[in-house]
Amino acid sequence: MNSAPVSEHRLHRRVQFHETDAAGMVHFSWFYRYMEEAEHALWRAAGLSVTEVAADVFFPRVSASCDFRNPLRFEDEFEIAIRITGLTEKTIRYACAMTRGETPIASGTLVAACVSVRPGQPLKAVPIPQAIRDRFAVAPV
Amino acid sequence: MNSAPVSEHRLHRRVQFHETDAAGMVHFSWFYRYMEEAEHALWRAAGLSVTEVAADVFFPRVSASCDFRNPLRFEDEFEIAIRITGLTEKTIRYACAMTRGETPIASGTLVAACVSVRPGQPLKAVPIPQAIRDRFAVAPV
Amino acid sequence: MNSAPVSEHRLHRRVQFHETDAAGMVHFSWFYRYMEEAEHALWRAAGLSVTEVAADVFFPRVSASCDFRNPLRFEDEFEIAIRITGLTEKTIRYACAMTRGETPIASGTLVAACVSVRPGQPLKAVPIPQAIRDRFAVAPV
Amino acid sequence: MNSAPVSEHRLHRRVQFHETDAAGMVHFSWFYRYMEEAEHALWRAAGLSVTEVAADVFFPRVSASCDFRNPLRFEDEFEIAIRITGLTEKTIRYACAMTRGETPIASGTLVAACVSVRPGQPLKAVPIPQAIRDRFAVAPV
Repeated sequence: MNSAPVSEHRLHRRVQFHETDAAGMVHFSWFYRYMEEAEHALWRAAGLSVTEVAADVFFPRVSASCDFRNPLRFEDEFEIAIRITGLTEKTIRYACAMTRGETPIASGTLVAACVSVRPGQPLKAVPIPQAIRDRFAVAPV
Repeated sequence: MNSAPVSEHRLHRRVQFHETDAAGMVHFSWFYRYMEEAEHALWRAAGLSVTEVAADVFFPRVSASCDFRNPLRFEDEFEIAIRITGLTEKTIRYACAMTRGETPIASGTLVAACVSVRPGQPLKAVPIPQAIRDRFAVAPV
Repeated sequence: MNSAPVSEHRLHRRVQFHETDAAGMVHFSWFYRYMEEAEHALWRAAGLSVTEVAADVFFPRVSASCDFRNPLRFEDEFEIAIRITGLTEKTIRYACAMTRGETPIASGTLVAACVSVRPGQPLKAVPIPQAIRDRFAVAPV
Repeated sequence: MNSAPVSEHRLHRRVQFHETDAAGMVHFSWFYRYMEEAEHALWRAAGLSVTEVAADVFFPRVSASCDFRNPLRFEDEFEIAIRITGLTEKTIRYACAMTRGETPIASGTLVAACVSVRPGQPLKAVPIPQAIRDRFAVAPV
């Protein structure tokens, strides 16, 4: 594990058949999952897991968006490049660029909030634990 | 709510676009979800929820199988008929027939075991709570 | 079928177990599918199907976004209200509000482009066929 | 590419968050997708793609079954070992064993039929093209 804070990560991925739809392309809902897979890979690269670091917090999404440029098809190999673009007391903002070789496929954003887990209570945003914060930094522009 | 034990249920469903794959048909993995949707509708018809009745048990699958006869396509309307075909101390067995009008689509089975939830411990089959058992009966052949 | 153009639609839905994740809530990727289910229900309310009206065009997404306010959990019943908020020569813009009773759950947008299907060619935006256009109108603010 | 016929393949995989459900485990419908991912990896190992070899046939499932022994959880690394256990004129039968280290997770079977694609016609099983057949062999017991 690298002890420097982590700002970005690249994930290589192949399109699976069950990710396609009857238009012969990857269904758009999958791009949000691809972004999340890259986010979790980024956390692992930082030596963390979204579920194991702190048993009493988790990081649900506050918002997510994606712009679609070109389709992905079955067995296409592509890359998801994720970068941390914002880090506030309670939230982490990511930007993702998905590409197949030189072809731009999609670009998106995820905002996740640090939320305390109290059974039977509404979700409540809380400060990101220091042990997690220390492992991340905003990527240079 | 009917106070007689429940043995079978019919669920009407329409194929959603995200359930199709690049072959233009519903991806086969969805049929297992359709069967589970019918199972949970059967539980609701019995006045139960798989997650709320007993906080310390749940019903993961021990096995599931499906034979595929004809494809389903986007916006097809179809029916899932589920029947309880076996009820042992710790398991429930279901059979499902999926049809689109008169056309047979698929038939499958699910076996679910009653399992106790003990954090950090392996899953362990336990007797089905009486309050659940009383609500179900094996369907006549 | 109503012969007046259609601008909005409401879809009632129940959360299925397979839509939840290990945080005990509906996985955020599902909200994009819920929006699409409402979009296709809106098309059906207009007497159309996204796949049947014109064999040589389809309507992939150009962009989609969602803000998440409160979680949905297994068996929650909720509503997806979809409205057409923009209609250009080649695109349709929708806004969706998802609610569980009085509780706001999520709100999102979809932009779909009319694209011609030419095997082996890149996707190309084309004017929305008149027979489709005539069935839709932008919802009043 | 190896020119000898292919009989088995091993695929290493990590559980993604969106594959889990509210019971904190991988939803059982995913195991069928894992098997299919291994099947397609086996085809690639044989120098083939289920979608590209022959434009006029595809290989939908005739049946699929799975027995579940132990749960998989988020970020678990596991292996899917797939073997060809039967090869008839028109069908291929696979057996899959899924394991996490020494722990048995699940075992399943897939049967796929070679089907001709004729727009607007019912699916019809046809002989597996020789160029595909030659690349596969039944695994020794």
